[in-house]
Amino acid sequence: MMQTPLLLTDFVKRAERFFPNKLIISRTGETIHRIPYKEFGKRTRKLAEALTKLGMQHGTKVGSFAWNHHRHLEAYFGVPCSGAILHMINIRLSPEHIAYVINHAEDEILLVDADLLPLIEKLAPLLKTVRHYVIMQDGFDLPKTSLENVSSYEMILAEASDDYEFPEDLDENTPAGMCYTSATTGNPKGVVYTHRGIVLHSFALGLTDVMGLSERDIVLSVVPMFHANAWGLPFASVFFGTTQVLPGPGFTPQLLLDLVEQEKVSLTAGVPTIWLGVLKEQEKNPRDLSSLRAVVCGGSASPKGLIRAFEEKYGIPFIVGYGMTETTPIVSLSTLTSAMDNLSMDERIDMRALQGMTVPGLDVRIVNENGEVPWDGKTMGELTIRGPWVASEYYKDERTEEAFRDGWLYTGDIAVMTEDGYIKITDRTKDLIKSGGEWISSVDLENALMTHESVFEAAVIAVPHEKWQERPLACVVLKEEYVNSVTKEDLLSYLEGQFAKWWVPDNVVFLNEIPKTSVGKFLKASLRNDLAETYRVKETI
Amino acid sequence: MMQTPLLLTDFVKRAERFFPNKLIISRTGETIHRIPYKEFGKRTRKLAEALTKLGMQHGTKVGSFAWNHHRHLEAYFGVPCSGAILHMINIRLSPEHIAYVINHAEDEILLVDADLLPLIEKLAPLLKTVRHYVIMQDGFDLPKTSLENVSSYEMILAEASDDYEFPEDLDENTPAGMCYTSATTGNPKGVVYTHRGIVLHSFALGLTDVMGLSERDIVLSVVPMFHANAWGLPFASVFFGTTQVLPGPGFTPQLLLDLVEQEKVSLTAGVPTIWLGVLKEQEKNPRDLSSLRAVVCGGSASPKGLIRAFEEKYGIPFIVGYGMTETTPIVSLSTLTSAMDNLSMDERIDMRALQGMTVPGLDVRIVNENGEVPWDGKTMGELTIRGPWVASEYYKDERTEEAFRDGWLYTGDIAVMTEDGYIKITDRTKDLIKSGGEWISSVDLENALMTHESVFEAAVIAVPHEKWQERPLACVVLKEEYVNSVTKEDLLSYLEGQFAKWWVPDNVVFLNEIPKTSVGKFLKASLRNDLAETYRVKETI
Repeated sequence: MMQTPLLLTDFVKRAERFFPNKLIISRTGETIHRIPYKEFGKRTRKLAEALTKLGMQHGTKVGSFAWNHHRHLEAYFGVPCSGAILHMINIRLSPEHIAYVINHAEDEILLVDADLLPLIEKLAPLLKTVRHYVIMQDGFDLPKTSLENVSSYEMILAEASDDYEFPEDLDENTPAGMCYTSATTGNPKGVVYTHRGIVLHSFALGLTDVMGLSERDIVLSVVPMFHANAWGLPFASVFFGTTQVLPGPGFTPQLLLDLVEQEKVSLTAGVPTIWLGVLKEQEKNPRDLSSLRAVVCGGSASPKGLIRAFEEKYGIPFIVGYGMTETTPIVSLSTLTSAMDNLSMDERIDMRALQGMTVPGLDVRIVNENGEVPWDGKTMGELTIRGPWVASEYYKDERTEEAFRDGWLYTGDIAVMTEDGYIKITDRTKDLIKSGGEWISSVDLENALMTHESVFEAAVIAVPHEKWQERPLACVVLKEEYVNSVTKEDLLSYLEGQFAKWWVPDNVVFLNEIPKTSVGKFLKASLRNDLAETYRVKETI
Repeated sequence: MMQTPLLLTDFVKRAERFFPNKLIISRTGETIHRIPYKEFGKRTRKLAEALTKLGMQHGTKVGSFAWNHHRHLEAYFGVPCSGAILHMINIRLSPEHIAYVINHAEDEILLVDADLLPLIEKLAPLLKTVRHYVIMQDGFDLPKTSLENVSSYEMILAEASDDYEFPEDLDENTPAGMCYTSATTGNPKGVVYTHRGIVLHSFALGLTDVMGLSERDIVLSVVPMFHANAWGLPFASVFFGTTQVLPGPGFTPQLLLDLVEQEKVSLTAGVPTIWLGVLKEQEKNPRDLSSLRAVVCGGSASPKGLIRAFEEKYGIPFIVGYGMTETTPIVSLSTLTSAMDNLSMDERIDMRALQGMTVPGLDVRIVNENGEVPWDGKTMGELTIRGPWVASEYYKDERTEEAFRDGWLYTGDIAVMTEDGYIKITDRTKDLIKSGGEWISSVDLENALMTHESVFEAAVIAVPHEKWQERPLACVVLKEEYVNSVTKEDLLSYLEGQFAKWWVPDNVVFLNEIPKTSVGKFLKASLRNDLAETYRVKETI
């Protein structure tokens, strides 16, 4: 067989050749652009040429700090198709972590949305490797900025030629992209994606038994494109010539529903928080959702009430998925097999709420000290994953050793396997808090609290939240001398200077002691048992 | 990313784990077996162990000489998953060519259907490398045979253990299978398939925009499994846990329709000859075809009347495909894009009759002396193909140089590209005759005719045939002294000893001369123009 490499370049060429008139519908905040793939191809080639003029070479890291729009999509291809690496920076990290990931990845060029510029301007003095900034916005005019070496994205494209040819000699294992994922403690960990991994992942998304992504679909990617390749949809959509709707910055449930109705969206993907909001808006102000053939939901566990509303009331399959930054990211989906055709609605919703069946191409084992656990829906173990779109390491990070062992990724998620082979996540080994699809490190918050002069010890746990799924709750034992003088407000304002706003716990509960294991570790499971229901946040959305 | 190889082994493991109770429905001629994938996995492992005991090692060629049934499917996996190579021998080759391909491939073990044993017994003295024969039939008893070193398939399985573990250290570029394809002249040419190529081809078959092969399908593979991996369906079906119906030896249109109705077949694939017969039987004796979501047709051009009958009368999408032994084999399919939703029935049938759109993962160019031809539906050129499931050479064959140039496979097919990017084959460069999906070499027949003492010169051309699409017609110029003494019967019986029966032309037309090009080559296109309609065979099926 020919040793033809699996490359993203072929996705661009396929879209240009076969689907020149299919659209990318891109909301930038200023307007909605409707860009045919033929034009996308030209702009992507121009971007590649323009960045090459700015010094981008094989292996150069180019950071993107941007929302979901066509320029970000052009970077998704223009950078890796030239042999360089697109580092999709999570704009929701704390400023310290943003600086860390840019420095750690050694990004040389940053593509920054104009409305996110203030964030980057503040960090600029900390950035050690960035040589050039490219501002993404409609039009040629640069906003006022304190940055040096700044270009306008549209201007450098206007000055570039659209007959740029991507290099033909890339190896399929060439790095194409990078994302960082929050860690239990310490700095985020970097994952490098290769052309091969993303191409195979894209094939998987097109399988009828996975997402069945098709030329016929109109896909609304609500998942941020700075998050785990936006679950692979922007890549696979170019491969298949799928119409894409990119919702841009600051979208609301209203806007998303308007897009679904106006653009006749057939498939959309996002986190539970988003769908809770959308559902609430739809109840208030119904739109025509008849074009939707499925809603895919991942990032954290989906409440059954949410699943039921979509499945029962609107007749829209609500497919829960599981994945990680480390896995490109799709690992499993709660698609239903032919054996489940006769399930009752309740049974169907129970199946949908699981993390689902491993997609073809990956191998999943749930293991405990006795090896792989039986498929009984009861025996717990750690979820481990292997396959060609699973990372083999963290980028230049000694934490690689913990997670990657014997050829498997140890996810840190505790799960059981049902008799049908469906994954059910039951717990997390590492007590991360997932708020609105984003991770919050409990350990980092604890460490910060314990630097306050009044705090004897502190544990931070997740409590359920109707909108954000989980929010952090701080459990604090004060030193005796402070018991009546320090308030929860004191501690929260102490944290506010140190963390992103949404990391700061909603509440503080003062305890006499933190329960501990025999070796002195906090027994957080016990805390959650005692406190989670009491402090559940019923705040309406 | 992990360097996890793409291996067929993972297909077996996936079917065993996730679809243990899904069925392979296998007609052996004696009975119909219903074998769950769990049992298939055990039997495949037993086969691997049994063949290993018979000396099969990494790289050993094992030939199969068999119809479509579960034992052949077990060989499809048991052999390559052990690191050996399954050579699927086309039982319809001439005896000389069968002996050639077995010797050329250096097959050491032959798996032979009991009813095909007489063919192999006759050839056995010519076979230089075969050490052992394994007879595939129901039950343990061996038929009487003149062969030495013979085992019963079921007996060696009964003696093997089902906990055989496939090797874990195969490279994805390890050869997995071989097929030989008839050549314009001379011996058939060998193509070696790799694990990587077949795995990627299987992913493609599962894409919604290709065949959309799914766990939910019930697939009837009418294409013989000794033919181009039976278009990849047996492999992909195990990957996805699809129910398979294997129709065994000597099936009739009646039997195929009974299987469709009884097993609720959703997808089936075969050559036009088969569907013409099925259609005729269905008109006479209608079955319930409502389970069929599509019929796929390839191997030679499909008459529009056939497409219309399925599309219009039965409402079943009739999807024409194009592929070659060299391409694993699917290259393109006449699936319709969303842009074609509003076509009239006539326009729809016109699109379906094309060879269709290149599947994701491959690259097709139609080239002439000016480079790639424009997509105008008019400009002809040679179809060239590139991609990870396209062969890079013929196995130990100097004809490699003609066909594989500059990283592309030159197919020898002349085609145009429509404005939509759909391939339309217009001619063949090499004048092969395609009869019932099988190739007949006109040059070989000509060479044989010209060895007859009475023949001055001879050209063999294809004439249309309602059942077989094409049949050979011999155009003969006799030496003057034989003009009134030699009959067409004389010449046909002269050929009968030398070729498979179906290779022998249906008719001979005596001419005064064969038209020739300026360099003295036969102008077969001119002969076809003059004679094809006159000698069109309107024989009813």
